[in-house]
Order: sequence, then structure tokens, then C-alpha cells
Amino acid sequence: MRAARYYDRKDIRIEDIPEPELQPGTVAIDVAWCGICGTDLHEYLEGPIFIPPQGHPHPISGEDAPVTIGHEFSGTITALGDGVTDLEVGQNVVVEPYIIGDDVDTSPGEDYQLSPNMNFIGLGGRGGGLSEKIVVQRRWVHPIGDIPLDQAALIEPLSVGHHAFVRSGARAGQVAIIGGAGPIGLLTAAVLRAEGLSVYISELSEARKQMALDTGVADAVLDPREGDVAERVRELTDGKGADVGFECSSVPVVLDMLLDAVRPGGVIVNVSIWGHKPEVDMPKLVLKEIDLRGTIGYAGDHPATIDLVASGKLDLAPFITGRITLDGLVSEGFDQLINNNEHHVKIIVDPNA
Amino acid sequence: MRAARYYDRKDIRIEDIPEPELQPGTVAIDVAWCGICGTDLHEYLEGPIFIPPQGHPHPISGEDAPVTIGHEFSGTITALGDGVTDLEVGQNVVVEPYIIGDDVDTSPGEDYQLSPNMNFIGLGGRGGGLSEKIVVQRRWVHPIGDIPLDQAALIEPLSVGHHAFVRSGARAGQVAIIGGAGPIGLLTAAVLRAEGLSVYISELSEARKQMALDTGVADAVLDPREGDVAERVRELTDGKGADVGFECSSVPVVLDMLLDAVRPGGVIVNVSIWGHKPEVDMPKLVLKEIDLRGTIGYAGDHPATIDLVASGKLDLAPFITGRITLDGLVSEGFDQLINNNEHHVKIIVDPNA
Ligand SMILES: NC(=O)c1ccc[n+]([C@@H]2O[C@H](COP(=O)([O-])OP(=O)(O)OC[C@H]3O[C@@H](n4cnc5c(N)ncnc54)[C@H](O)[C@@H]3O)[C@@H](O)[C@H]2O)c1
Ligand SMILES: NC(=O)c1ccc[n+]([C@@H]2O[C@H](COP(=O)([O-])OP(=O)(O)OC[C@H]3O[C@@H](n4cnc5c(N)ncnc54)[C@H](O)[C@@H]3O)[C@@H](O)[C@H]2O)c1
Ligand SMILES: [Zn+2]
Ligand SMILES: [Zn+2]
Repeated sequence: MRAARYYDRKDIRIEDIPEPELQPGTVAIDVAWCGICGTDLHEYLEGPIFIPPQGHPHPISGEDAPVTIGHEFSGTITALGDGVTDLEVGQNVVVEPYIIGDDVDTSPGEDYQLSPNMNFIGLGGRGGGLSEKIVVQRRWVHPIGDIPLDQAALIEPLSVGHHAFVRSGARAGQVAIIGGAGPIGLLTAAVLRAEGLSVYISELSEARKQMALDTGVADAVLDPREGDVAERVRELTDGKGADVGFECSSVPVVLDMLLDAVRPGGVIVNVSIWGHKPEVDMPKLVLKEIDLRGTIGYAGDHPATIDLVASGKLDLAPFITGRITLDGLVSEGFDQLINNNEHHVKIIVDPNA
Repeated sequence: MRAARYYDRKDIRIEDIPEPELQPGTVAIDVAWCGICGTDLHEYLEGPIFIPPQGHPHPISGEDAPVTIGHEFSGTITALGDGVTDLEVGQNVVVEPYIIGDDVDTSPGEDYQLSPNMNFIGLGGRGGGLSEKIVVQRRWVHPIGDIPLDQAALIEPLSVGHHAFVRSGARAGQVAIIGGAGPIGLLTAAVLRAEGLSVYISELSEARKQMALDTGVADAVLDPREGDVAERVRELTDGKGADVGFECSSVPVVLDMLLDAVRPGGVIVNVSIWGHKPEVDMPKLVLKEIDLRGTIGYAGDHPATIDLVASGKLDLAPFITGRITLDGLVSEGFDQLINNNEHHVKIIVDPNA
């Protein structure tokens, strides 16, 4: 079968590799669609980061580069391994793409995303969504009912937004301010709106400001060049400030803005991955008793996330901005995102086309 | 009556001033003991900070320098204003030293410490504990039962520790790591021990390391010069890490250590007041899903704090390291703390001696 294999920085090859073998307790899936993620771009441009470099196999998967990439994917079950009795061949599913120790408890309520050496299918080994087929452990497979397979490829990043929402403790009727309208900021906004919050988004790029409006995820889009965003949030909330903030840009001034824009006693969830240690306005965090919370991946979020989409509360269609084949992965996918990033939310790939 | 009056940086005078007048809804108190706080030192050396400078009256108290100082005090009720029916003359009490708008709801559960223009009695006006007498609003008066009046002067900083404990959400049986064994670190440790946690303290100063051991508030004292503190905390917790951390030093490396020493999913409460914006290890906060929480003052903490001491669960006596009179305030109080700080926890002042 054909698969996108990461060898090294700037070296991704579309190759023919053996089909993965069904094992007891696993599920074989024909991939329908796989999204390209900012993380994939980072690996391509600056990696290997999550990907285990050649000669340094990952402690859980035992694999090193080259590895198959792609972690945001949907597909259809083609076969069930011994002992898998609660799924059916022909069912449409998404994969929660974790590589986590077999001894780690992954039942609902467990923080398995924080377990030692956690990595992701499609980065740390165990196949990937940018290939025709994949075989994964039963525990990572989530049926999606009637959700169209193209939209379902966005369930993974949407679950990141859902987990950030859960981490925030936010409730319907509250007000959220999001810093950054990239894919993660927009999908977090989509979850918050579907959960009944009012959502303001701060963003610099004209194309992304427009996207935030077009997709209907923002009650208002605030441009920091057009005036103090925190001040504007206070005006929009009768002087009170937002209940929750979400850092989705990894830009220090955005974190500063959020510390200013949330109300005393408010919560900020930091979703972005920082490449350095930023200066943080700790005096403000202390005097306003703000909670600043990290969030990574998801844990037990997939069923609720799928339900938001299946129930029609959240429409993923507007976030798909491109469809390509495996052969176009670099030229129409990565290069497009590198040069024209702000005009895209998600480019999805059909590896069987 | 005699009172310590703050005029300006390095200008504190012991003066004769008129006695405060009893008003409806207020309580007259003869001050027994008043502690000197790091905040008082800051005002003396680098202020005015909380104190409204001359010509800039505080929006709630309407007062500016000179003001009477001292916010950590105990005393005995000498008179009750009209409408105060639930206290008695002769009762021993402490004061929760807030200056907060009359319209702010200060009932239990309300975050009144976060209300606009919050300031403190003994800094922002309304008299202070470093004077013979004071008159305060009923809502700030807390009876202390049989607690000795000298120890009761430490209820205020102990309430800071109690509020930090409440903010942490920590429970009996958990493990805490505290950075800094100054008065605030030690009193926070005392609350945590009384609440059933195991407590490790990191501290550099020999005298303070000894104090942490002598007062019995630490299960172990860890010196960063004798090896990696976070590593040592993991050893002491079967590799797990601490459940909660408390930043009580305002030193960046201590905050870094705490982010390393708490377990994934752990909580850090930042008690210290920062004079600048430190670099924070946000990558670690995100990947470990740490909650970093500010805490300021107290709100509804005094009754529980008083109960910890009244019930004998917590002994404040060992934290009193000096007793002086009002005349000795600068020479035996401030100067002693400035030059010999690490040998003291609390110096208390008897303004009627
Ligand atoms: N925590 C997790 O589990 C997780 C998962 C996936 C991605 N991430 C991280 O989330 C972050 C966001 O991902 P993304 O793909 O959306 O990134 P992105 O770079 O596409 O989006 C960032 C957005 O912030 C905007 N921005 C920059 N400066 C700004 C400013 N001053 N004010 C307002 N907006 C500003 C940019 O214009 C851009 O639209 C990244 O750091 C990524 O690594 C985290
Ligand atoms: N949040 C609040 O409501 C509140 C209330 C009162 C005080 N405070 C703040 O709490 C903080 C502590 O107050 P304090 O009076 O105890 O201060 P302090 O200066 O007496 O104590 C700080 C301690 O940290 C220790 N320290 C310094 N570097 C260290 C290191 N690298 N490792 C370990 N220990 C180190 C010092 O030796 C010292 O003992 C201050 O910032 C103060 O302003 C906050
Ligand atoms: Zn991704
Ligand atoms: Zn104090």
C-alpha cells in the first residue's frame, strides 16, 4: 500500500510499504481522509520533534524514522482482530491517535494523556493516517455514526479544543476570549459556541479574521491593531471581563492580553505549544487570582466531541479549505500551508485516491 | 493616643493622634499585639506602594499619607457601635484588615478580595494596628475565643497561608512542596501540616532551614545547593512528584523548580508578589497540564484559620521571634528585620506598653 513516510527534515516520501497485519485486540481501517496539522509542518520544517530520529526508537512503539505520518484521520473498519466484539466491519470511525503504555489505564476520567513517554500514532510510529490502511488497538477507535468521513478527519483537532474547554471549567452563558484564529483557535471557538458560550476572538490576519466570521464561531473578532483588545472585551461585558481565555497563538503579547481581558478569578487555558519560556505577567495573575492551566491533547474527549458534531450542534464543513491526494501532499499540502497558511484551516488528504 | 504614622519612604513617626470615634456598625478595639510584615518593610524601604501618597487619597478610604500602619493585630473590644449586637465588650478579637467598598458583598463564598480598589487597613487608611486603639466595621471583626492575644497577631498572615491552601484544592494525605521558608512559606506550611498534608520546603538560608525544622512544619527541608530539589521530591514520592506546590519566594528558579517538582496534573499556587514579569516554563506547564493559580489575601478564611489554632491543631507560639514596644518600632523592629531578617519569623509590637 502507499504511505507518506517521514525520513528527516524536508524529506517526506510517498512509498509502497507492506500492509499492516491484524493482531488480536486490534482493528483494521481503510483510511478515508487525513488532515494536515501544524505539528506535521513543524516536523517537516524543523523536525524531527515528536518523531523518533533514526537510531533513537520510541520507548513504547520501538520505532524510529522513517515512520508513516498523519494523525488526524477517519476511515472504515475492514476487519476486527480476535477479541474485538463491540465494533463491526463497515463501521465508520475515527482514531484517537495515542501511543501510550499498555499498562496505562485509559478509561474515562483517567489523565492518560499525561502518562510517561506519551506520543502520537502518525508521529511516534504505529502507522499513520497518510496511508491507505492502518491497524490500531481497539481502545483508540471511536465510531462516528452518520458524520461524513471528510468532516470526521477534523474530530482530532476538534477534540483538542474540547479538552481545552473541559480544562477551563467554562459553562454555558459565560464569555470566552480566544487569542489566535488558527485551526486550533477556530476549532476551540467552535466547541465553546456549541457549548453555549459567547466567544470573542483576537486575530491579526485579515484572512483569518474573515474565516472566524464566515464560520460563525465568533460573536466578534477583535484586531489588536484597532485598539486595546482587553479594554474592548470589558466594554462588551459591562466592565466585567471574560470568564475564560484561551491562548492559541504562542505569542507573548497575546498571553498578556488574556491576563488583562479575563475577569478577577477568571481562568486562562494555554493551548499553544511554546518554543521558549515567555515572560508572564505574574503580578497580574496573583492580584486577580487567575488560574493559568495547561492542556495537552485529549483524554476521554472523543465521544463528547463526536456527539457535538453528530447532533448537529457543530458543523465542521466550513473548516475544510482544501482536498488533495497523497501524491500532492508536499506540493499542494505542505507547500500551500507554508506559503499561504492564513487562507487555510484544514487541508485534508484522500490516501486512496 | 500613640500611633506609628507613615509619612513617606524611611519616614515613620511615633505620634500622638486623636482617638478614633465609634460610629454605628463599628467596633472599638484596644490593640494588644501587632506584627510587622514584609509589606511594611517594603513600604518603609521602597514605598509608598499600597499606601496612598500625600495628595493621592485612596478612592475608598479617602485618606492619604500620613496614615497609621500595622495590619496584623489582635485586641480586646472596648465598645460597640449602634446596631452591633452579636459581639461583646471584653471579647478578644482579630481584624481582617480590608478596605473594601461598602457595596461589595463580603459574605462567605464571595471573592471580595478581588473587588475594585481593594486595600488594607494599616496601609490604605482607616487606622492601623500599630496604635493604641482602632475602630473598625463589624464585618472585619473575628472573635478568637481562648487563643492568646500574642499568637493571635499572627492570624492575619496565617490566613494568607490558609487562603493559599484553599486555592490549591489540596486534601489531607497529599504532598506539598513549598519554595521559600520566610514567614509566608512557614505559615503556609503550618496550615498544610495541620490540614494533613506532607510538606517539603526548599530554602537556602541556614537559619530559616533550621526554623522550618524547629517549628515542625516540614517533613523535610531541601537545600537547592545540595542537589536538584525536584529530583529529591520525586525520590520522596516514589517517582510521582508533589500534588501541590506553593511559590513563596518570588525567585524565578524557585517557580521553575515547582513546575518540575509537581506531578503531571498538579497545582501550583503562587503566593509571592512579583516586582517584575518572570520567565515561566510554559512548555512544562502545558505538557504536564499544570494549574498555576494566583492567591491574594484571604476571603472568608478567618473563621477556619482561627479554628485551626483554637483547636490546638496548629501552634503559633514558635513563630514569634521578637517582642518590642512602639518606641522600638524602627530600631528594634524594622532595622532588625532589614539586617537580621533570616533569624526572624514575626516580631510583634505591643502599642500600649
Ligand atoms: N495543547 C495541544 O494539545 C495542542 C494541539 C495542537 C496544537 N497546539 C498548538 O496550538 C497552537 C495553535 O495552533 P494553530 O495550528 O492554530 O497555529 P497557527 O499558527 O495557525 O495560529 C496562530 C494564530 O495566531 C495569530 N496571531 C499571531 N499573533 C497574534 C496577535 N498578536 N494577536 C492575535 N492573534 C495573533 C496568527 O495570525 C495565527 O492565525 C500552536 O502553538 C500549536 O502547537 C496545541
Ligand atoms: N499573596 C498574598 O496575599 C501575600 C501576602 C503576604 C505576603 N506575600 C508575599 O509572599 C512572599 C513571601 O513573603 P515572606 O515575607 O515570607 O518573604 P521572605 O523574603 O522573608 O521569604 C522568602 C524566602 O525565600 C527564600 N529563597 C530565596 N531564594 C531561594 C531559592 N533559590 N530556593 C529556596 N528558597 C529561596 C529566602 O531565603 C527567604 O527565606 C513575598 O513575595 C510577599 O510579598 C503575598
Ligand atoms: Zn494535530
Ligand atoms: Zn502582612
